[in-house]
Amino acid sequence: MSGTTLDDYTDLYAQRVHGMKASEIRALFSVANRPEVVSLAGGSPYTAALPLDAIGEMVAELIQREGAPALNYCVGQGEAALREQICAVMAEEGVDASVGASPDDVVVTTGSQQALDLVARVFLDPGDVVLAEAPSYVGALGVFQAAEADVVHVQMDDDGLVPEALEEAIAAVAASGRRAKFLYTVPAFHNPAGVTLAEERRERILEICQRHHLLVLEDNPYGLLGFEEQPPAPLRSRARDGVLYLGTFSKTFAAGIRLGWILAPHAVRDKIVMASEASILCPPTFNQRIATRYFTTMPWREQLKVFRELYRERRDATLAALTDFMPDGVRWTHPGGGFYVWLTLPEALDSKAMMPRAINARVAYVPGTGFYADGSGTSHLRLSYCFPPPERLREGVRRLGHVIEEELSLRSTFGATGSAGAPRRVAGDVPPGIA
Amino acid sequence: MSGTTLDDYTDLYAQRVHGMKASEIRALFSVANRPEVVSLAGGSPYTAALPLDAIGEMVAELIQREGAPALNYCVGQGEAALREQICAVMAEEGVDASVGASPDDVVVTTGSQQALDLVARVFLDPGDVVLAEAPSYVGALGVFQAAEADVVHVQMDDDGLVPEALEEAIAAVAASGRRAKFLYTVPAFHNPAGVTLAEERRERILEICQRHHLLVLEDNPYGLLGFEEQPPAPLRSRARDGVLYLGTFSKTFAAGIRLGWILAPHAVRDKIVMASEASILCPPTFNQRIATRYFTTMPWREQLKVFRELYRERRDATLAALTDFMPDGVRWTHPGGGFYVWLTLPEALDSKAMMPRAINARVAYVPGTGFYADGSGTSHLRLSYCFPPPERLREGVRRLGHVIEEELSLRSTFGATGSAGAPRRVAGDVPPGIA
Repeated sequence: MSGTTLDDYTDLYAQRVHGMKASEIRALFSVANRPEVVSLAGGSPYTAALPLDAIGEMVAELIQREGAPALNYCVGQGEAALREQICAVMAEEGVDASVGASPDDVVVTTGSQQALDLVARVFLDPGDVVLAEAPSYVGALGVFQAAEADVVHVQMDDDGLVPEALEEAIAAVAASGRRAKFLYTVPAFHNPAGVTLAEERRERILEICQRHHLLVLEDNPYGLLGFEEQPPAPLRSRARDGVLYLGTFSKTFAAGIRLGWILAPHAVRDKIVMASEASILCPPTFNQRIATRYFTTMPWREQLKVFRELYRERRDATLAALTDFMPDGVRWTHPGGGFYVWLTLPEALDSKAMMPRAINARVAYVPGTGFYADGSGTSHLRLSYCFPPPERLREGVRRLGHVIEEELSLRSTFGATGSAGAPRRVAGDVPPGIA
Repeated sequence: MSGTTLDDYTDLYAQRVHGMKASEIRALFSVANRPEVVSLAGGSPYTAALPLDAIGEMVAELIQREGAPALNYCVGQGEAALREQICAVMAEEGVDASVGASPDDVVVTTGSQQALDLVARVFLDPGDVVLAEAPSYVGALGVFQAAEADVVHVQMDDDGLVPEALEEAIAAVAASGRRAKFLYTVPAFHNPAGVTLAEERRERILEICQRHHLLVLEDNPYGLLGFEEQPPAPLRSRARDGVLYLGTFSKTFAAGIRLGWILAPHAVRDKIVMASEASILCPPTFNQRIATRYFTTMPWREQLKVFRELYRERRDATLAALTDFMPDGVRWTHPGGGFYVWLTLPEALDSKAMMPRAINARVAYVPGTGFYADGSGTSHLRLSYCFPPPERLREGVRRLGHVIEEELSLRSTFGATGSAGAPRRVAGDVPPGIA
């Protein structure tokens, strides 16, 4: 068998693949990992703060005592013992048995990313509409794009999603003869916007969704990472039906074990399990038993306090540096928890066009376009403060401030030279670990 | 938000979900796990044969030395060090650098199940045709069904896939105005058929696929588990292009870490990585480092010998028991490796209808219908010899022989009373761990 070339198979690709192409900024992220670059791009949790020796001992004992089943297959829904611990964690987030949260309705997934993917498989046909905040989590946009769905963004402000904007978006979609299937939302410590949906908006948003027969897909990875106070109770704690609730151990324990979950109404849960079995057979048994043991035998609430204190200090360092080093006209959000600050540049600037110059100045961020499905976001960028220590954060923000200043002075001298038009976001703009 | 009921959201489901329903035999498998039942149904590897203490120590040291990165995100393609080890394992299977196998073209997946799923996403549109052996791996059928593709089965015999039948199937698909995108095949120690594609057929099959511009999806989970001899060299070792090659650590190391891979032509590999990132962000870093360390520091080739010897003994016990206890008219395959024996019952019998009576007699198997997309397979069943010890296997086969005898005597007294017609296979017929 010779004479065929790789491109011979291009005509065999599925329809959904034709939108997939690697983006030009992707290559920049590999440069961002060089030690001389301060990366404010990545969303990696600071796992070095975990009690590694104790975890090592715990895992060794687990393998000794129950290695044979831990290293074998399990059921597609995930192990019952872990689903019980997940309910304990969700109760801490405000979603407990009093609102019908039960281990039986939990499905364990390969990070909450897979939960997003499973929801897309169960609910999305090509051409369906998904409503999502503007901006929105890049990993979710990737899922909706792979499902060939259309994302319609809904305006946010410092209090999160704007209810009136949601009403308008629903009406506009209906007027175009299409129908939105669900609202995807990150109400607490939003990625990338760093804002939290205000208490007084929560019932209102639920009421709008119910009235329009719209599912709510509530993603809550940062709910336990509030610095001054807990965020308002999740949407799922206010509505038993109509809300699919996603969680993850990536931020409260370890991203590298890739475990998340979905809490779904019973009938939906069945479909999710079948879709997951078709996708991965079952989540990793070994990792599930590690998480079960961690949450039953180790002081995870104290560890959460360690993480909160650590990230609070880094947020403070970032906000102080922004105040000290950003030129006039740059605005940013003030996150009460989570990992991210969202910057808005003066309008003439293009964060994507600026990226090579930032890398050259040894600082990296994620351009705002990654967080929009429609190519907008050029005047925004996301900074992550979760991984670098405070002094590095300060140095990174200082470098970035300098880059923006130079950009502004170039613009005032020569006028706007940024890229013309707004290219649509392409799949794979932002690699995982950055997401 | 009240007044909504769970079923209110049924009209929101995607098209692909409407074919999903839990099957009646699924419930029987939970009964099959009771200790009094000899389960010849499950495909779980015998992980108790692993050196658990040594693995425990290895993992504890790994967490101590590199816990922080091991518990964090990694790149979507999977870590470079593991991809190198995967190449070492593939070389053992006959796919090495001389035929262009390179770590750069490997993508690490959540078991080879996810690799199947990713191939389906990259290549299958609804209504596309996939050719697959008759019978075929149940997990693959689940993936193709979820992708809304049509599976056309191709006849096998004791030497594996029949080349003439492949030609005929391709012609029949073309005559129906459709086009097959790929051939899915398990050439070595087939699941469930227990047969191996003969050396003299391999070039022929490749030539047919090349001539018809058909991709080959070669799944090789059992290639290193040959009892008397290695299987003939994989198709991928005979063709650099046109073959996507799947592998897994589930049978050579541990199923519970859920790690597999795909080796794909470079252009295809890019699409696979992007599809995987949209699905799970990245495979579990922690598990990847465990596998890397296992395959670089521990005697994995010796462990493979342990597994081969163990499974050979179990196969021998099963074949001997079949000879001793099966009534006339029952036929079975003679696997040279892997986990499975495929039984053919006298035509009047229906393995699915017989299943409750078998469970009642405290023996479980997988009815043949699970391995066909078209509802055929009623006169077949699969026995797995990988998990129970030899004396349990013998007892299980004895019980099964008795059930079949009773079934035959009922049939000769009252005539056929099996289920009428051939219902199509439904998703979720067979749960993971059974697959």
